[in-house]
Amino acid sequence: MAAIVSLSGGLDSATVLARCLEVRKKLVIPVFFRYDSKHNEHEFLAAGRVANHFSRTLRVIDLRSFSSHLHSNLMKNGGEIPEGHYMDITMDQTVVPSRNIIFASILSGYAWGNGGSEVWLGIHAGDHHIYPDCRPEFFASMNAAICLGTGNRIELVAPFLRKTKAEIVREGLRLRVPYELTRTCYKDQELACGKCGACCERLEAFGINNQKDPVRYE
Amino acid sequence: MAAIVSLSGGLDSATVLARCLEVRKKLVIPVFFRYDSKHNEHEFLAAGRVANHFSRTLRVIDLRSFSSHLHSNLMKNGGEIPEGHYMDITMDQTVVPSRNIIFASILSGYAWGNGGSEVWLGIHAGDHHIYPDCRPEFFASMNAAICLGTGNRIELVAPFLRKTKAEIVREGLRLRVPYELTRTCYKDQELACGKCGACCERLEAFGINNQKDPVRYE
Repeated sequence: MAAIVSLSGGLDSATVLARCLEVRKKLVIPVFFRYDSKHNEHEFLAAGRVANHFSRTLRVIDLRSFSSHLHSNLMKNGGEIPEGHYMDITMDQTVVPSRNIIFASILSGYAWGNGGSEVWLGIHAGDHHIYPDCRPEFFASMNAAICLGTGNRIELVAPFLRKTKAEIVREGLRLRVPYELTRTCYKDQELACGKCGACCERLEAFGINNQKDPVRYE
Repeated sequence: MAAIVSLSGGLDSATVLARCLEVRKKLVIPVFFRYDSKHNEHEFLAAGRVANHFSRTLRVIDLRSFSSHLHSNLMKNGGEIPEGHYMDITMDQTVVPSRNIIFASILSGYAWGNGGSEVWLGIHAGDHHIYPDCRPEFFASMNAAICLGTGNRIELVAPFLRKTKAEIVREGLRLRVPYELTRTCYKDQELACGKCGACCERLEAFGINNQKDPVRYE
Protein backbone atom coordinates (compact mmCIF):
# COMPACT_ATOMS: atom_id res chain seq x y z
CA MET A 1 0.00 0.00 0.00
CA ALA A 2 1.23 3.48 -0.89
CA ALA A 3 1.94 6.42 1.39
CA ILE A 4 0.54 9.76 0.18
CA VAL A 5 2.61 12.81 1.19
CA SER A 6 1.06 16.27 1.23
CA LEU A 7 3.87 18.27 -0.41
CA SER A 8 3.56 22.07 -0.36
CA GLY A 9 7.12 22.67 -1.53
CA GLY A 10 8.05 24.17 1.84
CA LEU A 11 10.72 23.13 4.30
CA ASP A 12 8.48 20.95 6.50
CA SER A 13 6.76 18.91 3.82
CA ALA A 14 10.00 18.41 1.85
CA THR A 15 11.51 16.91 5.01
CA VAL A 16 8.40 14.75 5.53
CA LEU A 17 8.79 13.43 1.99
CA ALA A 18 12.47 12.59 2.59
CA ARG A 19 11.60 10.85 5.86
CA CYS A 20 8.74 8.92 4.23
CA LEU A 21 11.06 7.76 1.43
CA GLU A 22 13.61 6.63 4.03
CA VAL A 23 11.01 4.54 5.86
CA ARG A 24 8.83 3.34 2.99
CA LYS A 25 11.51 3.17 0.24
CA LYS A 26 8.99 3.19 -2.63
CA LEU A 27 5.25 3.55 -3.18
CA VAL A 28 5.47 7.14 -1.97
CA ILE A 29 3.19 9.58 -3.81
CA PRO A 30 3.65 13.34 -3.32
CA VAL A 31 0.46 15.39 -3.81
CA PHE A 32 0.25 19.16 -4.19
CA PHE A 33 -2.86 21.33 -3.65
CA ARG A 34 -3.57 24.32 -5.85
CA TYR A 35 -5.79 26.66 -3.83
CA ASP A 36 -5.12 30.28 -4.79
CA SER A 37 -3.06 31.39 -1.84
CA LYS A 38 -0.77 34.29 -2.73
CA HIS A 39 2.32 32.06 -2.67
CA ASN A 40 0.70 28.98 -4.20
CA GLU A 41 2.30 29.28 -7.66
CA HIS A 42 5.76 29.65 -6.06
CA GLU A 43 4.98 26.62 -3.88
CA PHE A 44 3.85 24.70 -6.96
CA LEU A 45 7.21 25.27 -8.68
CA ALA A 46 9.08 24.31 -5.51
CA ALA A 47 7.01 21.16 -4.98
CA GLY A 48 7.77 20.12 -8.56
CA ARG A 49 11.51 20.69 -8.02
CA VAL A 50 11.51 18.70 -4.76
CA ALA A 51 9.47 15.82 -6.21
CA ASN A 52 11.77 15.73 -9.23
CA HIS A 53 14.86 15.69 -6.98
CA PHE A 54 13.50 12.54 -5.32
CA SER A 55 12.48 11.02 -8.69
CA ARG A 56 8.77 11.16 -7.87
CA THR A 57 5.90 12.34 -10.09
CA LEU A 58 4.02 15.16 -8.38
CA ARG A 59 0.25 14.63 -8.40
CA VAL A 60 -1.84 17.79 -8.30
CA ILE A 61 -5.30 18.33 -6.78
CA ASP A 62 -6.97 21.53 -7.90
CA LEU A 63 -9.18 23.27 -5.31
CA ARG A 64 -9.30 26.64 -7.05
CA SER A 65 -12.97 26.26 -7.96
CA PHE A 66 -13.95 26.74 -4.32
CA SER A 67 -10.91 28.10 -2.47
CA SER A 68 -12.30 31.66 -2.81
CA HIS A 69 -14.76 30.64 -0.07
CA LEU A 70 -11.84 30.31 2.37
CA HIS A 71 -11.17 33.84 3.60
CA SER A 72 -7.64 34.73 4.77
CA ASN A 73 -4.93 37.29 4.13
CA LEU A 74 -2.89 34.38 2.80
CA MET A 75 -5.31 34.07 -0.12
CA LYS A 76 -5.15 36.04 -3.36
CA ASN A 77 -8.43 37.77 -2.55
CA GLY A 78 -7.33 38.60 1.03
CA GLY A 79 -5.51 41.59 2.58
CA GLU A 80 -1.78 42.22 3.08
CA ILE A 81 0.55 39.55 4.46
CA PRO A 82 1.78 40.87 7.83
CA GLU A 83 5.51 41.12 8.56
CA GLY A 84 7.23 40.22 11.82
CA HIS A 85 7.70 37.17 13.98
CA TYR A 86 5.35 34.21 13.71
CA MET A 87 4.04 34.51 17.24
CA ASP A 88 2.72 38.01 16.64
CA ILE A 89 -1.02 38.29 16.86
CA THR A 90 -1.12 39.67 13.30
CA MET A 91 -0.11 36.27 11.96
CA ASP A 92 -3.64 35.14 12.83
CA GLN A 93 -4.63 36.83 9.60
CA THR A 94 -2.76 34.16 7.66
CA VAL A 95 -4.84 31.27 9.01
CA VAL A 96 -6.71 29.63 6.11
CA PRO A 97 -10.00 28.32 7.53
CA SER A 98 -9.89 24.54 7.97
CA ARG A 99 -6.99 24.12 5.53
CA ASN A 100 -5.43 21.06 7.16
CA ILE A 101 -8.85 19.56 7.87
CA ILE A 102 -9.72 19.84 4.18
CA PHE A 103 -6.32 18.67 2.89
CA ALA A 104 -6.27 15.61 5.19
CA SER A 105 -9.86 14.73 4.25
CA ILE A 106 -9.31 14.93 0.52
CA LEU A 107 -6.06 12.97 0.76
CA SER A 108 -7.84 10.23 2.71
CA GLY A 109 -10.27 9.84 -0.21
CA TYR A 110 -7.41 10.08 -2.70
CA ALA A 111 -5.44 7.40 -0.83
CA TRP A 112 -8.47 5.10 -0.59
CA GLY A 113 -9.10 5.39 -4.32
CA ASN A 114 -5.44 5.04 -5.31
CA GLY A 115 -4.12 2.11 -3.31
CA GLY A 116 -2.86 4.12 -0.34
CA SER A 117 -3.03 3.34 3.36
CA GLU A 118 -1.26 6.35 4.92
CA VAL A 119 -1.45 10.11 4.51
CA TRP A 120 1.69 11.93 5.73
CA LEU A 121 1.37 15.55 6.85
CA GLY A 122 3.96 18.20 7.74
CA ILE A 123 2.20 19.70 10.75
CA HIS A 124 4.62 20.49 13.58
CA ALA A 125 5.00 22.20 16.95
CA GLY A 126 6.07 25.56 15.52
CA ASP A 127 2.54 26.05 14.18
CA HIS A 128 0.64 25.06 17.31
CA HIS A 129 0.38 28.59 18.64
CA ILE A 130 -1.27 30.18 15.59
CA TYR A 131 -2.97 27.34 13.73
CA PRO A 132 -5.60 25.28 15.58
CA ASP A 133 -5.50 22.56 12.90
CA CYS A 134 -1.81 21.86 13.60
CA ARG A 135 -2.17 20.91 17.28
CA PRO A 136 -1.74 17.38 18.67
CA GLU A 137 -5.31 17.22 20.03
CA PHE A 138 -6.66 18.16 16.60
CA PHE A 139 -4.42 15.58 14.94
CA ALA A 140 -5.61 12.80 17.29
CA SER A 141 -9.29 13.54 16.57
CA MET A 142 -8.74 13.95 12.85
CA ASN A 143 -6.83 10.68 12.65
CA ALA A 144 -9.64 8.91 14.54
CA ALA A 145 -12.24 10.43 12.22
CA ILE A 146 -10.33 9.33 9.13
CA CYS A 147 -9.63 5.81 10.44
CA LEU A 148 -13.32 5.37 11.36
CA GLY A 149 -14.70 7.16 8.31
CA THR A 150 -12.69 5.05 5.89
CA GLY A 151 -13.44 1.74 7.60
CA ASN A 152 -9.87 1.59 8.96
CA ARG A 153 -8.39 1.79 5.48
CA ILE A 154 -6.46 5.05 5.93
CA GLU A 155 -4.46 6.57 8.76
CA LEU A 156 -2.69 9.90 9.15
CA VAL A 157 1.03 10.14 9.92
CA ALA A 158 2.64 13.35 11.19
CA PRO A 159 6.28 12.52 11.95
CA PHE A 160 7.06 16.05 13.19
CA LEU A 161 3.88 16.68 15.20
CA ARG A 162 5.86 17.52 18.35
CA LYS A 163 9.07 18.75 16.70
CA THR A 164 10.12 22.38 16.35
CA LYS A 165 11.15 23.86 13.02
CA ALA A 166 14.82 23.74 14.15
CA GLU A 167 14.48 20.03 14.93
CA ILE A 168 12.94 19.45 11.49
CA VAL A 169 15.90 21.22 9.84
CA ARG A 170 18.31 19.05 11.85
CA GLU A 171 16.49 15.94 10.64
CA GLY A 172 16.42 17.30 7.09
CA LEU A 173 20.17 17.95 7.06
CA ARG A 174 20.69 14.31 8.03
CA LEU A 175 18.33 13.24 5.24
CA ARG A 176 20.06 15.56 2.73
CA VAL A 177 16.87 17.43 1.88
CA PRO A 178 17.59 19.88 -0.98
CA TYR A 179 16.46 22.96 0.97
CA GLU A 180 17.72 25.22 -1.82
CA LEU A 181 14.77 23.96 -3.90
CA THR A 182 12.09 24.66 -1.29
CA ARG A 183 9.84 27.71 -0.86
CA THR A 184 8.59 29.03 2.48
CA CYS A 185 7.83 32.77 2.01
CA TYR A 186 4.14 33.77 2.14
CA LYS A 187 4.48 36.60 -0.36
CA ASP A 188 3.77 36.56 -4.09
CA GLN A 189 7.26 37.49 -5.28
CA GLU A 190 10.11 35.53 -6.81
CA LEU A 191 12.69 35.91 -4.05
CA ALA A 192 11.71 35.16 -0.46
CA CYS A 193 11.06 38.36 1.50
CA GLY A 194 12.87 37.37 4.70
CA LYS A 195 10.38 39.43 6.73
CA CYS A 196 7.07 37.56 6.92
CA GLY A 197 6.40 35.18 9.80
CA ALA A 198 7.17 32.12 7.69
CA CYS A 199 10.56 33.52 6.54
CA CYS A 200 11.46 34.65 10.10
CA GLU A 201 10.77 31.21 11.52
CA ARG A 202 12.70 29.47 8.76
CA LEU A 203 15.79 31.70 9.11
CA GLU A 204 15.71 31.18 12.87
CA ALA A 205 15.56 27.38 12.43
CA PHE A 206 18.70 27.37 10.26
CA GLY A 207 20.39 29.75 12.71
CA ILE A 208 19.76 27.41 15.65
CA ASN A 209 21.46 24.66 13.62
CA ASN A 210 24.40 27.01 12.83
CA GLN A 211 23.59 26.67 9.16
CA LYS A 212 22.99 29.21 6.43
CA ASP A 213 19.62 28.89 4.67
CA PRO A 214 20.55 28.04 1.04
CA VAL A 215 17.47 29.88 -0.31
CA ARG A 216 18.08 33.39 -1.77
CA TYR A 217 16.39 36.31 -0.04
CA GLU A 218 15.68 39.76 -1.45
CA MET B 1 -24.16 33.06 13.40
CA ALA B 2 -25.47 31.10 10.45
CA ALA B 3 -26.14 27.38 10.13
CA ILE B 4 -24.82 25.76 6.96
CA VAL B 5 -26.89 22.81 5.70
CA SER B 6 -25.39 20.26 3.32
CA LEU B 7 -28.28 19.87 0.85
CA SER B 8 -28.01 17.05 -1.68
CA GLY B 9 -31.61 17.36 -2.85
CA GLY B 10 -32.44 13.96 -1.35
CA LEU B 11 -35.01 13.00 1.25
CA ASP B 12 -32.69 13.16 4.26
CA SER B 13 -31.03 16.49 3.62
CA ALA B 14 -34.32 18.14 2.63
CA THR B 15 -35.70 17.08 6.01
CA VAL B 16 -32.56 18.35 7.75
CA LEU B 17 -33.05 21.73 6.05
CA ALA B 18 -36.69 21.88 7.21
CA ARG B 19 -35.69 20.96 10.75
CA CYS B 20 -32.87 23.52 10.77
CA LEU B 21 -35.26 26.23 9.57
CA GLU B 22 -37.71 25.26 12.32
CA VAL B 23 -35.03 25.60 15.00
CA ARG B 24 -32.94 28.47 13.63
CA LYS B 25 -35.72 30.41 11.82
CA LYS B 26 -33.31 32.36 9.60
CA LEU B 27 -29.59 32.54 8.83
CA VAL B 28 -29.80 29.07 7.31
CA ILE B 29 -27.62 28.57 4.23
CA PRO B 30 -28.09 25.44 2.06
CA VAL B 31 -24.94 24.34 0.20
CA PHE B 32 -24.79 21.82 -2.65
CA PHE B 33 -21.70 19.92 -3.83
CA ARG B 34 -21.09 19.24 -7.50
CA TYR B 35 -18.84 16.19 -7.68
CA ASP B 36 -19.59 14.15 -10.81
CA SER B 37 -21.55 11.32 -9.32
CA LYS B 38 -23.92 9.73 -11.85
CA HIS B 39 -26.98 11.29 -10.19
CA ASN B 40 -25.36 14.62 -9.29
CA GLU B 41 -27.09 16.73 -11.97
CA HIS B 42 -30.48 15.31 -10.94
CA GLU B 43 -29.61 16.07 -7.31
CA PHE B 44 -28.57 19.59 -8.31
CA LEU B 45 -31.98 20.29 -9.84
CA ALA B 46 -33.74 18.81 -6.80
CA ALA B 47 -31.61 20.80 -4.35
CA GLY B 48 -32.47 23.98 -6.25
CA ARG B 49 -36.20 23.14 -6.10
CA VAL B 50 -36.07 22.39 -2.37
CA ALA B 51 -34.04 25.53 -1.54
CA ASN B 52 -36.45 27.59 -3.63
CA HIS B 53 -39.45 26.06 -1.85
CA PHE B 54 -38.01 27.27 1.45
CA SER B 55 -37.07 30.69 -0.03
CA ARG B 56 -33.35 30.07 0.35
CA THR B 57 -30.58 30.75 -2.15
CA LEU B 58 -28.65 27.56 -2.87
CA ARG B 59 -24.88 28.02 -2.66
CA VAL B 60 -22.82 25.65 -4.80
CA ILE B 61 -19.33 24.29 -4.17
CA ASP B 62 -17.75 22.72 -7.22
CA LEU B 63 -15.47 19.72 -6.57
CA ARG B 64 -15.45 18.42 -10.14
CA SER B 65 -11.80 19.36 -10.65
CA PHE B 66 -10.71 16.54 -8.36
CA SER B 67 -13.70 14.26 -7.82
CA SER B 68 -12.39 11.90 -10.53
CA HIS B 69 -9.81 10.81 -7.93
CA LEU B 70 -12.64 9.35 -5.80
CA HIS B 71 -13.30 5.92 -7.27
CA SER B 72 -16.79 4.43 -6.89
CA ASN B 73 -19.56 2.96 -9.01
CA LEU B 74 -21.61 5.97 -7.94
CA MET B 75 -19.28 8.21 -9.96
CA LYS B 76 -19.59 8.95 -13.66
CA ASN B 77 -16.28 7.19 -14.33
CA GLY B 78 -17.27 4.12 -12.27
CA GLY B 79 -19.08 0.85 -13.09
CA GLU B 80 -22.78 -0.01 -13.02
CA ILE B 81 -25.05 1.00 -10.11
CA PRO B 82 -26.17 -2.28 -8.50
CA GLU B 83 -29.86 -3.02 -8.00
CA GLY B 84 -31.47 -4.57 -4.94
CA HIS B 85 -31.82 -3.81 -1.28
CA TYR B 86 -29.44 -1.41 0.46
CA MET B 87 -28.03 -4.02 2.81
CA ASP B 88 -26.78 -6.14 -0.05
CA ILE B 89 -23.03 -6.46 -0.18
CA THR B 90 -23.06 -5.07 -3.74
CA MET B 91 -24.08 -1.68 -2.38
CA ASP B 92 -20.51 -1.37 -1.09
CA GLN B 93 -19.66 -0.45 -4.66
CA THR B 94 -21.56 2.83 -4.22
CA VAL B 95 -19.41 4.05 -1.33
CA VAL B 96 -17.63 7.25 -2.42
CA PRO B 97 -14.29 7.29 -0.58
CA SER B 98 -14.31 9.78 2.29
CA ARG B 99 -17.28 11.70 0.89
CA ASN B 100 -18.76 12.83 4.20
CA ILE B 101 -15.29 13.50 5.63
CA ILE B 102 -14.56 15.79 2.69
CA PHE B 103 -17.99 17.49 2.66
CA ALA B 104 -17.92 18.17 6.42
CA SER B 105 -14.36 19.51 6.20
CA ILE B 106 -15.03 21.89 3.35
CA LEU B 107 -18.24 23.12 4.96
CA SER B 108 -16.35 23.84 8.19
CA GLY B 109 -14.02 26.14 6.22
CA TYR B 110 -16.98 27.61 4.34
CA ALA B 111 -18.84 28.28 7.61
CA TRP B 112 -15.77 29.85 9.23
CA GLY B 113 -15.27 32.20 6.28
CA ASN B 114 -18.97 33.06 5.91
CA GLY B 115 -20.18 33.84 9.41
CA GLY B 116 -21.36 30.33 10.27
CA SER B 117 -21.06 28.39 13.50
CA GLU B 118 -22.81 25.10 12.68
CA VAL B 119 -22.68 22.60 9.81
CA TRP B 120 -25.79 20.41 9.58
CA LEU B 121 -25.49 16.99 7.95
CA GLY B 122 -28.08 14.41 6.89
CA ILE B 123 -26.25 11.28 8.02
CA HIS B 124 -28.57 8.74 9.65
CA ALA B 125 -28.85 5.20 11.00
CA GLY B 126 -29.99 3.70 7.68
CA ASP B 127 -26.53 4.31 6.25
CA HIS B 128 -24.51 2.94 9.18
CA HIS B 129 -24.24 -0.54 7.73
CA ILE B 130 -22.72 0.37 4.36
CA TYR B 131 -21.06 3.75 4.86
CA PRO B 132 -18.34 4.04 7.53
CA ASP B 133 -18.50 7.84 7.41
CA CYS B 134 -22.15 7.83 8.53
CA ARG B 135 -21.64 6.03 11.85
CA PRO B 136 -22.00 7.68 15.28
CA GLU B 137 -18.38 6.92 16.27
CA PHE B 138 -17.16 8.58 13.07
CA PHE B 139 -19.42 11.56 13.67
CA ALA B 140 -18.11 12.04 17.24
CA SER B 141 -14.49 12.03 16.09
CA MET B 142 -15.15 14.25 13.09
CA ASN B 143 -17.02 16.75 15.23
CA ALA B 144 -14.14 16.80 17.73
CA ALA B 145 -11.62 17.30 14.89
CA ILE B 146 -13.62 20.18 13.43
CA CYS B 147 -14.23 21.87 16.81
CA LEU B 148 -10.52 21.62 17.65
CA GLY B 149 -9.27 22.39 14.14
CA THR B 150 -11.33 25.56 13.87
CA GLY B 151 -10.46 26.85 17.34
CA ASN B 152 -13.99 25.98 18.58
CA ARG B 153 -15.61 28.17 15.93
CA ILE B 154 -17.55 25.44 14.12
CA GLU B 155 -19.47 22.37 15.22
CA LEU B 156 -21.28 19.64 13.34
CA VAL B 157 -24.97 18.89 13.86
CA ALA B 158 -26.57 15.64 12.68
CA PRO B 159 -30.19 15.68 13.90
CA PHE B 160 -30.96 12.23 12.45
CA LEU B 161 -27.72 10.46 13.39
CA ARG B 162 -29.60 7.67 15.20
CA LYS B 163 -32.88 7.84 13.26
CA THR B 164 -33.98 5.40 10.58
CA LYS B 165 -35.16 6.55 7.15
CA ALA B 166 -38.76 5.82 8.19
CA GLU B 167 -38.36 8.02 11.27
CA ILE B 168 -36.94 10.80 9.09
CA VAL B 169 -39.96 10.58 6.78
CA ARG B 170 -42.29 10.77 9.81
CA GLU B 171 -40.47 13.90 10.98
CA GLY B 172 -40.53 15.33 7.45
CA LEU B 173 -44.28 14.79 7.11
CA ARG B 174 -44.75 16.81 10.31
CA LEU B 175 -42.46 19.52 8.90
CA ARG B 176 -44.32 19.50 5.53
CA VAL B 177 -41.17 18.73 3.54
CA PRO B 178 -42.02 18.87 -0.20
CA TYR B 179 -40.85 15.30 -0.89
CA GLU B 180 -42.26 15.51 -4.43
CA LEU B 181 -39.36 17.91 -5.20
CA THR B 182 -36.59 15.64 -3.85
CA ARG B 183 -34.37 13.15 -5.67
CA THR B 184 -33.01 9.95 -4.16
CA CYS B 185 -32.31 7.53 -7.05
CA TYR B 186 -28.63 6.77 -7.76
CA LYS B 187 -29.09 6.37 -11.51
CA ASP B 188 -28.51 8.93 -14.24
CA GLN B 189 -32.05 9.01 -15.63
CA GLU B 190 -34.92 11.45 -15.35
CA LEU B 191 -37.41 9.25 -13.49
CA ALA B 192 -36.29 7.39 -10.38
CA CYS B 193 -35.61 3.70 -11.13
CA GLY B 194 -37.29 2.25 -8.03
CA LYS B 195 -34.76 -0.60 -8.03
CA CYS B 196 -31.41 0.69 -6.73
CA GLY B 197 -30.63 0.50 -3.02
CA ALA B 198 -31.45 4.17 -2.47
CA CYS B 199 -34.88 3.85 -4.15
CA CYS B 200 -35.68 0.59 -2.28
CA GLU B 201 -34.89 2.18 1.08
CA ARG B 202 -36.92 5.30 0.30
CA LEU B 203 -40.01 3.38 -0.85
CA GLU B 204 -39.80 1.21 2.25
CA ALA B 205 -39.61 4.32 4.50
CA PHE B 206 -42.82 5.73 3.01
CA GLY B 207 -44.45 2.30 3.26
CA ILE B 208 -43.70 2.03 6.99
CA ASN B 209 -45.43 5.41 7.40
CA ASN B 210 -48.42 4.17 5.35
CA GLN B 211 -47.75 6.92 2.83
CA LYS B 212 -47.27 6.91 -0.92
CA ASP B 213 -43.96 8.39 -2.08
CA PRO B 214 -45.02 11.46 -4.16
CA VAL B 215 -42.01 11.08 -6.50
CA ARG B 216 -42.69 9.48 -9.91
CA TYR B 217 -40.99 6.17 -10.67
CA GLU B 218 -40.35 4.61 -14.07
